Amino acid sequence: MPTTTLHAEKAGTAETISAFRLVDTDIHHCLRSTSDLLPYLSRYDQERLKGFGTGGTGDPYAYNGGVHGRRVDTVTDGPFVEPGSDIDKVIRDHLDHSGFDIGILTGQSVYGASAIADHAYAASLCRAFNDWTIEHWLPRDQRFRFCMAIGTQDPGAAAKEIDRIGDHPQICGVLMPGGAPRPFGQKFYHPIYEACCRHGLTPSIHFFSEGGGINPAPTPAGYPGSYAESRASRFTIYLAHLASMIYEGLFETFPTMKFAMLECGFAWVPTTLWRMDSDWKGLRQQVPWVKRLPSEYVADHVRFNSQPIDEPPRRGDIEQVVNWMHGDRTLMFGSDFPHWDYDDPAHTLNELPAPLRKRVMADNAVDAFNLRPHRSMV
Amino acid sequence: MPTTTLHAEKAGTAETISAFRLVDTDIHHCLRSTSDLLPYLSRYDQERLKGFGTGGTGDPYAYNGGVHGRRVDTVTDGPFVEPGSDIDKVIRDHLDHSGFDIGILTGQSVYGASAIADHAYAASLCRAFNDWTIEHWLPRDQRFRFCMAIGTQDPGAAAKEIDRIGDHPQICGVLMPGGAPRPFGQKFYHPIYEACCRHGLTPSIHFFSEGGGINPAPTPAGYPGSYAESRASRFTIYLAHLASMIYEGLFETFPTMKFAMLECGFAWVPTTLWRMDSDWKGLRQQVPWVKRLPSEYVADHVRFNSQPIDEPPRRGDIEQVVNWMHGDRTLMFGSDFPHWDYDDPAHTLNELPAPLRKRVMADNAVDAFNLRPHRSMV
Repeated sequence: MPTTTLHAEKAGTAETISAFRLVDTDIHHCLRSTSDLLPYLSRYDQERLKGFGTGGTGDPYAYNGGVHGRRVDTVTDGPFVEPGSDIDKVIRDHLDHSGFDIGILTGQSVYGASAIADHAYAASLCRAFNDWTIEHWLPRDQRFRFCMAIGTQDPGAAAKEIDRIGDHPQICGVLMPGGAPRPFGQKFYHPIYEACCRHGLTPSIHFFSEGGGINPAPTPAGYPGSYAESRASRFTIYLAHLASMIYEGLFETFPTMKFAMLECGFAWVPTTLWRMDSDWKGLRQQVPWVKRLPSEYVADHVRFNSQPIDEPPRRGDIEQVVNWMHGDRTLMFGSDFPHWDYDDPAHTLNELPAPLRKRVMADNAVDAFNLRPHRSMV
Repeated sequence: MPTTTLHAEKAGTAETISAFRLVDTDIHHCLRSTSDLLPYLSRYDQERLKGFGTGGTGDPYAYNGGVHGRRVDTVTDGPFVEPGSDIDKVIRDHLDHSGFDIGILTGQSVYGASAIADHAYAASLCRAFNDWTIEHWLPRDQRFRFCMAIGTQDPGAAAKEIDRIGDHPQICGVLMPGGAPRPFGQKFYHPIYEACCRHGLTPSIHFFSEGGGINPAPTPAGYPGSYAESRASRFTIYLAHLASMIYEGLFETFPTMKFAMLECGFAWVPTTLWRMDSDWKGLRQQVPWVKRLPSEYVADHVRFNSQPIDEPPRRGDIEQVVNWMHGDRTLMFGSDFPHWDYDDPAHTLNELPAPLRKRVMADNAVDAFNLRPHRSMV
C-alpha cells in the first residue's frame, strides 16, 4: 500500500477557502463483531480477545438514547445490527444522502482500549482496528478519512503506531478517547504529539471511558445517577484537557499543532475562556511558560465540533455564542452518525449565522485536519 | 442560649422587597489556630486534633493567589495572621467599610472534615467549629449570619447537628463542601435536607476538597497541573451536584427547599441549562420522576453567588449571561472576603444591569436564606 507518496498533499494552508462544501468530522464506523479483529491479532491476543473482549466500557449506564444508542431509522428489524458497521449504509444513507465531500471515520469499537490496564493489549487492539479499517473501509470510498486509534496510556507505543501508518493518505488524525488518568496537556503525552507533527496528523479528543477502567470518576462528585444526568457533565472532560493544554504550555512546545475536539458541543467554550483569561491575568506569575491569553491559544490551535448542537430557548442566541468563540475559525460540523443524537447538516446550517456557514461546514475542518482531495478524486 | 424563640422570624416570603440593601453571602471566617477548637472537643478528639489536625486539605497545589491566598491589603507585616480570624477586622474593614446589612459567615477551617474517612471525628470537628462560632462570632455583631458546618459523609450525624443548633436565630444555612464521593442529589443525603427543612435552613455548596481525602479526582482526567489550571474546572463540581439534584428529582421531594451555590461564578449556568433542557426533552422517559424542564427547577430552587464575577472581553456581554439565567431571581452577591479573588460590591454592582441591582445585591439572598432582621436589630 502506498503510504508515503501522497504525504505532501496533506500540507494544507491556513484559512483555506476550500473546494469542499460539506465535511463531517465525526462518523462512527465500527466492527460488526469483535471477531473482525482476529485476523489482525497475534495468537496470544486472539485468545485475549475471545476471553476478555475489547475491555473498557464507556459510561456505566444501563441505557443510552434512541435504540441501543442509535438513530431509530438506522436500525433494521430483527436482531440488532450496529448501523455503523454497514459500509454500504454509511456511504449511501449518510455520505450520499447529505452530499458530504469528506467524511472522517472516528471509530468507537476500541475507544475503551485506552482504559485497559494491560497497555500492550490495548496497543494490539488499536493496531488491529487500524489495519481492519485500512483494509475494509478506506479503499471503499475516496471521501473517507480516518482518525486512527491509539492507546493513550502508553504514549511511546502510540507513537510507534502513528509512525507505522501515519502517512497513509486517508489518515488525517489520531483519536484520543477523553477518559484518562491525567490530562492531555502533560509531558507524559509528548511522544504522541511529536509523532502527530512528524506526519501532519491532528490529535482529536472524543469522550469515552470517563470513570471506566483505569480512569478517575466522571465528575469530581463521583458517578451521576443516570445517563441523562451524565450528559450534563460530559463537556467537562474536554474542558479538563483544554485547560491542561493551555496551562502546560502545549502550544508553545508544539507551535504548529492543531487539536480537534469531537462531539463536545460548544456553548461551554466562550464562558470558560473568559474564566481562563481572567485567571491567567491574576496568576500568570505561577505559569510563566504560558505566554499569551488562553483564548488566543484556543483561537489559533483548538477546533470544536458542533455536535450536539446547543439549543437555547431563544433560537438566535446561539449566534451570540458562536460569535464569542470566533466560530468563523474554531467551529467545525460533525454529525455523530449513526448515534441517536446525530445532527443533520441541514439543521446545523440553519442554526448558524450566514457568513460563517461555509467555514463551519467545511473550511475549518479542512484547515484543522489538512484535508486535501485524495489523489483519485483530483 | 435562646435557640428557638426567634424561629418564626426566619419564615421569609418569596420575592421579598427587602429593607436590606447589601447582603454578602460568603465571608470566610476562620480559626486563629486549630487549638481554638480544643475547648469544644472531647479528650479523645483533642488528642486527635493535636496529632492529626483538621485533616482533609483543599487543592493539592503548592500555591494560591494573593498572599497565602488572601487579599494583599488584609495581611499585616510580621508572621502570617489569617485575616479571616480577626473579628474586628471583618467587622471594621468589611461590614462597616462596604456598608453591609447582613454578612453570612461561611467558615473554611473545617471544610476538609467532609473529606476525612473518620466520619465521627469529622462530626466532632464540625460541632466544635459551630460552637466556637456561636460563642465568639455571632454575639459580636447583629449583622452576622452563619452557614453552619457539617460533615457530609454521614448525613445522619449531620442531621443531628442541624437539629441541635438549627434554630439559632443567626444560623441561616448549612455548608456542604463541594468535594464528595457521590453527588448531592442522591437519596443518601436526604437526612440533611429533611433537617434543613425542619429548621428553615438553606443547604449551600462551597467548593473544597475536590480530589482530596476520600473524594474522587477533581476532573474526569485527573489532577490539573497547577492551581491556575485547577480554577478552569472548579465550577464543574457545582455542575455535577446541580445535575444530580435535577435528575434525581430532589426538588420534587423537597418542594419548598432552596439551594445556594457559593463562590461558584455563574457564566457557566445558562449554557449548561440549555444542555440539560435539551437532554431532558430527549431522554425524559428514563427519568420519569423529573417532571419539569431542568431550567424551571433551577429558577425556582437554586441560587448562585456572583463571585468570582466573570469578565468577558466586551464588558456588556455579562448582561447577556445574567439575563439568560434570570439573574433577577437566581443571582446573589458574594464577596469571598478576605480571599485574594475577593469581589468588591461596588465593582459587582457596576457590572450588573441597573434593574437587577437591588435583587442581586440583597433581595435574592434574603429570599434564599430567609433573612430577617435579628431581633435586636428591629
